Amino acid sequence: MHARNPIDRLDPQVLAQACADVMQCEDRATKTLGIALVRVGPGEAVLTMTVREEMANGHGICHGGFIFTLADSAFAYACNSHGQRTVAQHCAVTFVLPVHAGATLTAHAVERSRAGRGGIYDVTVRAGDNVVAEFRGHSRTVAGDLLTPDTATPQER
Amino acid sequence: MHARNPIDRLDPQVLAQACADVMQCEDRATKTLGIALVRVGPGEAVLTMTVREEMANGHGICHGGFIFTLADSAFAYACNSHGQRTVAQHCAVTFVLPVHAGATLTAHAVERSRAGRGGIYDVTVRAGDNVVAEFRGHSRTVAGDLLTPDTATPQER
Amino acid sequence: MHARNPIDRLDPQVLAQACADVMQCEDRATKTLGIALVRVGPGEAVLTMTVREEMANGHGICHGGFIFTLADSAFAYACNSHGQRTVAQHCAVTFVLPVHAGATLTAHAVERSRAGRGGIYDVTVRAGDNVVAEFRGHSRTVAGDLLTPDTATPQER
Amino acid sequence: MHARNPIDRLDPQVLAQACADVMQCEDRATKTLGIALVRVGPGEAVLTMTVREEMANGHGICHGGFIFTLADSAFAYACNSHGQRTVAQHCAVTFVLPVHAGATLTAHAVERSRAGRGGIYDVTVRAGDNVVAEFRGHSRTVAGDLLTPDTATPQER
Repeated sequence: MHARNPIDRLDPQVLAQACADVMQCEDRATKTLGIALVRVGPGEAVLTMTVREEMANGHGICHGGFIFTLADSAFAYACNSHGQRTVAQHCAVTFVLPVHAGATLTAHAVERSRAGRGGIYDVTVRAGDNVVAEFRGHSRTVAGDLLTPDTATPQER
Repeated sequence: MHARNPIDRLDPQVLAQACADVMQCEDRATKTLGIALVRVGPGEAVLTMTVREEMANGHGICHGGFIFTLADSAFAYACNSHGQRTVAQHCAVTFVLPVHAGATLTAHAVERSRAGRGGIYDVTVRAGDNVVAEFRGHSRTVAGDLLTPDTATPQER
Repeated sequence: MHARNPIDRLDPQVLAQACADVMQCEDRATKTLGIALVRVGPGEAVLTMTVREEMANGHGICHGGFIFTLADSAFAYACNSHGQRTVAQHCAVTFVLPVHAGATLTAHAVERSRAGRGGIYDVTVRAGDNVVAEFRGHSRTVAGDLLTPDTATPQER
Repeated sequence: MHARNPIDRLDPQVLAQACADVMQCEDRATKTLGIALVRVGPGEAVLTMTVREEMANGHGICHGGFIFTLADSAFAYACNSHGQRTVAQHCAVTFVLPVHAGATLTAHAVERSRAGRGGIYDVTVRAGDNVVAEFRGHSRTVAGDLLTPDTATPQER
């Protein structure tokens, strides 16, 4: 008989917040881009980012890569909210409206399904009330608990 | 009878290079990330980026958003190489291997099909000889020639 | 000043049902596979199909193509519910669980966004309470009203 | 020390053909639709299908589900050509041109990458010289060798 994992006794909301706290310690990418975590919950996350002048692409509008990065970050916080290290495997994004410098974007990630090691998350990115992008991410759990201090990073296993 | 567009008389390789030059003038996003254009041709582009420490995500590996942004930039240079303003509509990316800080990534975009206003481009991202991501982008031409100085940016039409 | 389209005066639910009726007249594909339309509404559709023995693939389970076809049909009824001829442009499907002969599948399509000529629809396919597939479809309106008798089919314009 | 798998000693082309033979025994779905296997090789497959009148959708053109099914079948034969049972996990299709009854379609699947248990395959569907659809499939190996007679089907393990 193996000991029950202590994280299974945590309240799901407390667990989600603890996972987000651990991830934020290492997460330099989102800080660099000015991405802020607004809210996290079990299978859910809300993040915001204000589009900077230097995020403009060759057409003078926000490079889709930064919109993707915001959505992908929301996806990451949502799929890592259950305590197990989870990575993105496949993501698709549809750009609905162009975005200009100065706009503040909000990405809302919601869990759609979770079965075995795989999960599907939908992220809607809005500028004010307008949907600017729809994103769907497929995740996969890897070895390691997020809350165990000596758990190696995924690629080291 | 309407006048023939002068850009139709350009050599395709010369046209591709001229389009890339115009795009690079406005493209602050790729410069900010240290993305360099290695080569452009009709329907094709090769770009490189070295992964910085501040591109690390909450698991200590390169945030997928930056890998996507490199691939998406290669896609943009490839699909804009024919002289017409063209934007990304839908993109999908598969992350094959984790990437660490210090790695130099190369993205090679190739045109797969072009019909009407739509195009499909495949981008392979490598670290050395290893494929780290496969990307497929769907583009759509919008109003405006890239080489006509007073052509407004897409969102202004 | 152009005359207002009479279909704009229809109740959305009545319009959705009328569009579905028109489509069902021509739709031999779904009849051949035993796909039944359970319910249609504005931007929404529910369809069912029972998996037949002859739908088995080389591994002895239901060929993903039939699961896709059911989802794609639900998507088609949902995106054509507003009166304009609309076709599928890009679709993605994730197979979550294997399906066996004899299972009755239900596909529920919901509109996620509609802007300009493009739309995004999510379809969940279930066997009983279990999600077996998640589908996302991107549509594009083409010339032609569904309810105008002499409107040519899309490929003839 | 474990015994080396005898299928590792087979010539890759012989192995691919043997896997296809095993799959065709159980594969009722492709037979029902009149799909024929033209050629199989390591990581590659070519299949054809003639579009029947009863494959027409509500717009009077070939239902995208049948085009997907042809592409997905080519994907299946290609990703199962290495001897291990392999299933589709995620597929995306772009419909480039409408297809009419009577057209003979050819789907050509090519392996793009294979790493660990995952693989990526690209399938181009043509009617004569015209590309009508582009498909990308993501596969995952499951327990079981294709050439071991008593290997259970994937979902039974």
